[in-house]
Amino acid sequence: MHIREATLADFDQIWPFFHEIVAAGETYAYPRDTIREQAIKSWMETPRKTFVAEENGQILGSYYIKTNQPGGGDHVCNCGYMVSSAARGLGLATTMCEHSQQVAKSLGYQAMQFNFVASSNEGAVRLWTKLGFETVGRLPKAFLHPSRGYVDALVMYKWF
Amino acid sequence: MHIREATLADFDQIWPFFHEIVAAGETYAYPRDTIREQAIKSWMETPRKTFVAEENGQILGSYYIKTNQPGGGDHVCNCGYMVSSAARGLGLATTMCEHSQQVAKSLGYQAMQFNFVASSNEGAVRLWTKLGFETVGRLPKAFLHPSRGYVDALVMYKWF
Repeated sequence: MHIREATLADFDQIWPFFHEIVAAGETYAYPRDTIREQAIKSWMETPRKTFVAEENGQILGSYYIKTNQPGGGDHVCNCGYMVSSAARGLGLATTMCEHSQQVAKSLGYQAMQFNFVASSNEGAVRLWTKLGFETVGRLPKAFLHPSRGYVDALVMYKWF
Repeated sequence: MHIREATLADFDQIWPFFHEIVAAGETYAYPRDTIREQAIKSWMETPRKTFVAEENGQILGSYYIKTNQPGGGDHVCNCGYMVSSAARGLGLATTMCEHSQQVAKSLGYQAMQFNFVASSNEGAVRLWTKLGFETVGRLPKAFLHPSRGYVDALVMYKWF
């Protein structure tokens, strides 16, 4: 398994799992009806860099890194990770998160922040906690989960 | 004193205090060298609505309102407020914040979130607290204050 910077052509392989995750509406705060063009803008173009995790030419996951706040906040980055359903349970989120922290440091960031982790996404909360992220905020009822209704969203943070 | 929706022409009067506040770098996470065109984009164009507080044709302050997170987070709005230095201490921030909460409700939002309040901005923290906002997060050393160095940034939140 190899992680490398994404090219626009990679989006053909990213879109199926991006679409599946976003249409489910259970984890990410994207409109559930996000279309491909909007997805390219937010996943590939707006971020500072986007990476893919690839095995034998097949893309299994992807993440982006961007500056979370400009100006006086620009030493803190933000990342988002998606794993194809075919590749779940293989530790890919851990591998990508660790890779992203190395990339973040090489870009000069001093901390990483996740702005909006649905508290119902217990697997993600457990994983980020294990990887050294602290829950520094809890936004009451800030995420509308499609079946559970309003749930809290967490702000998670790691100073390098 | 009258609060109304802003027009693009109002930016001639907004820019002097926007520029003064942003160039100081003590409160807002904008690049301190933000130019007028970027300021128009982020203050007037990106938000859902922008308002000005006006007296005798003179604009004393301005605020924007926008959706803080799309999709499952789109019931929570975000606002930013700026007051001209000539109009400080007159309660304008309070007036604008109360106005913005009414606007937020009329637009269907159920909560308001401030993502990044510099903890060193004690006046703002005190004011938002007085107006019913709860400090739901503390981001360690997330804001680089020009004279105090790294200070925490707060996440403040009010469910209507």
